[in-house]
Amino acid sequence: MSRFLSGKLSKLEAYVPGEQPRDRRYIKLNTNESPYPPPQCVIDAVGMAEMEALRLYSDPECKILKEGIAEEYGVLPENVFISNGSDEILNFAFMAYGGRGAVFPDITYGFYSVFADLYGIDAETVPLREDFTVDTEAFCGRNSLVVIANPNAPTGIALTPEEVEKIIASNPDGVVIIDEAYVDFGAESVYKLYEKYDNLLTVRTYSKSRSMAGARLGFAFADRKIIEDLEKIKYSTNPYNINRLTQAAGAAALKDSGYFRKNCEKIAETREYTAECLKKLGFTLTPSAANFLFAKSGDIGGEELYVRLREKGILIRHFTSERIKDYNRITVGSRDEMDAFLRAVCEITGGKL
Amino acid sequence: MSRFLSGKLSKLEAYVPGEQPRDRRYIKLNTNESPYPPPQCVIDAVGMAEMEALRLYSDPECKILKEGIAEEYGVLPENVFISNGSDEILNFAFMAYGGRGAVFPDITYGFYSVFADLYGIDAETVPLREDFTVDTEAFCGRNSLVVIANPNAPTGIALTPEEVEKIIASNPDGVVIIDEAYVDFGAESVYKLYEKYDNLLTVRTYSKSRSMAGARLGFAFADRKIIEDLEKIKYSTNPYNINRLTQAAGAAALKDSGYFRKNCEKIAETREYTAECLKKLGFTLTPSAANFLFAKSGDIGGEELYVRLREKGILIRHFTSERIKDYNRITVGSRDEMDAFLRAVCEITGGKL
Repeated sequence: MSRFLSGKLSKLEAYVPGEQPRDRRYIKLNTNESPYPPPQCVIDAVGMAEMEALRLYSDPECKILKEGIAEEYGVLPENVFISNGSDEILNFAFMAYGGRGAVFPDITYGFYSVFADLYGIDAETVPLREDFTVDTEAFCGRNSLVVIANPNAPTGIALTPEEVEKIIASNPDGVVIIDEAYVDFGAESVYKLYEKYDNLLTVRTYSKSRSMAGARLGFAFADRKIIEDLEKIKYSTNPYNINRLTQAAGAAALKDSGYFRKNCEKIAETREYTAECLKKLGFTLTPSAANFLFAKSGDIGGEELYVRLREKGILIRHFTSERIKDYNRITVGSRDEMDAFLRAVCEITGGKL
Repeated sequence: MSRFLSGKLSKLEAYVPGEQPRDRRYIKLNTNESPYPPPQCVIDAVGMAEMEALRLYSDPECKILKEGIAEEYGVLPENVFISNGSDEILNFAFMAYGGRGAVFPDITYGFYSVFADLYGIDAETVPLREDFTVDTEAFCGRNSLVVIANPNAPTGIALTPEEVEKIIASNPDGVVIIDEAYVDFGAESVYKLYEKYDNLLTVRTYSKSRSMAGARLGFAFADRKIIEDLEKIKYSTNPYNINRLTQAAGAAALKDSGYFRKNCEKIAETREYTAECLKKLGFTLTPSAANFLFAKSGDIGGEELYVRLREKGILIRHFTSERIKDYNRITVGSRDEMDAFLRAVCEITGGKL
């Protein structure tokens, strides 16, 4: 830290992304990436013409991409915001709407508390229930910035659209962010409810279900006025936030949504298969609607399982927080990857399938 | 604007990027892009392998790219920061170091004042001298955040390294940002002075001299502790800020720096040629060391020239601020583009070359 850094930033603790070690090849089940590449139309989109045009600025309005998303999801372009990964939307929303405080579950995406600290927002965390479900009642009538990941991470547990709507409806004077990064794998989206509620901001990403984590592309749906706020912050920080190649890739991906939906189905199938196997091996699991499992071994601690899998070349995500330290978050990879993972678990725990 | 937006943001005026109209083909001399495409090695770098790996997150450390830049510029990786365009570095630096106020010229890159407003920073603007040179004395002994574009925009006028060092040395308790977006076209860089001054942050970009505005890639040099501050802000806002394709393209570009230097020379030659022609046509020009000219017609107002060139399919940048409203900023394109521009100017002003 330099001696120049402003006081409030000097105390800040930054977010720690999942590890990306380069010492050897790993089966990567630690950062919820897709096991499948993007569709051919995406690969084709970033061709010679786009590369030669790299000398020119990207479109700050992301017009083609925005119109493509609007069409795909049956909304107007004015209800869509495009960002450099969905983290950027969350960052802007905390900056814009945290003035009356913020509230989110104690166990959820770890970045929410970092954003709250960054902007000096008074943040309250509401404990998940004993079974790791979200206590919806506790998020009603807050009228501050309410942030819910649905499905939640790292538990994978989804709320029903009715439960989510209740939270939105009961906070008319606070923005409610529904972070639907994992919604395509088995939960129900509420994004269309912005037509009914001007306080709803639904956040999406290309990183998981659309196999494009490396392209950095997020999007959001909301009432036109909320989109205007986010655009204003974008134009006050980094107007050209999405590069040309990502815009081209993102627009192309919309042309083969069948491919993406098929991948989501395959991942959901592999998830159920892996969950059944883990249960047979004595694991306790939450009912995940996401592209990961949240699981606790009956035989071995969470950290030990993580360390011993890592030695075998398999990365999963371990969390040190007290309540969930015996759980791990395991990304659903390809069927082959999950079989390799299950074999390794058997070797470590002495279990048999 | 929504009814939820926090008070200080609601008053903010965002930056307005140069226009990117799509109604017809234009000769674009309005946003200081390069007339030349990136080198072949950049085009090759974004190939099939990189596209298939798009399902995986980009490296948040930007290790390969950072090491490449460090080698190219003869510094250590710990003295390099990589960003999603150089605007992102400026944004982070204003957030980090604006606590004691900020000072910059009255006529300079328009984004500085937006960042100051965004973070509620007490900003002072120092008028350029009558001849549009920076009044270096006025920036000495400030010990707040001092921001100087060198060469300055939109004037193109460069300070000598001795003048810049004087500003840095006289502000030991404030960070001095030297924004060298245009330095490769004819000014002298001071980036190595971070070894001597822990308060120097030198900002660079791939957007201009390296023909990659559409890739969104900026970088900066500074003392390790300043780089640590910027990394902390990055990891608290958007850790995966640079996508895979841009990282690959940026690293590849370093392998053909001969191409980039030759382009800079060509642009400097075309600049001098165009400046001579404009002088013959009765224009007043500042001595530009950048890839643009700053010019005032003796016959016609700045806005009228802009409008009439636009009608002829040529875009230049017009500014409405009182002091410079009769000037325009004209990007140096290819020789053919500048000849077309000069012909159009002759038609509009009745001049002859």
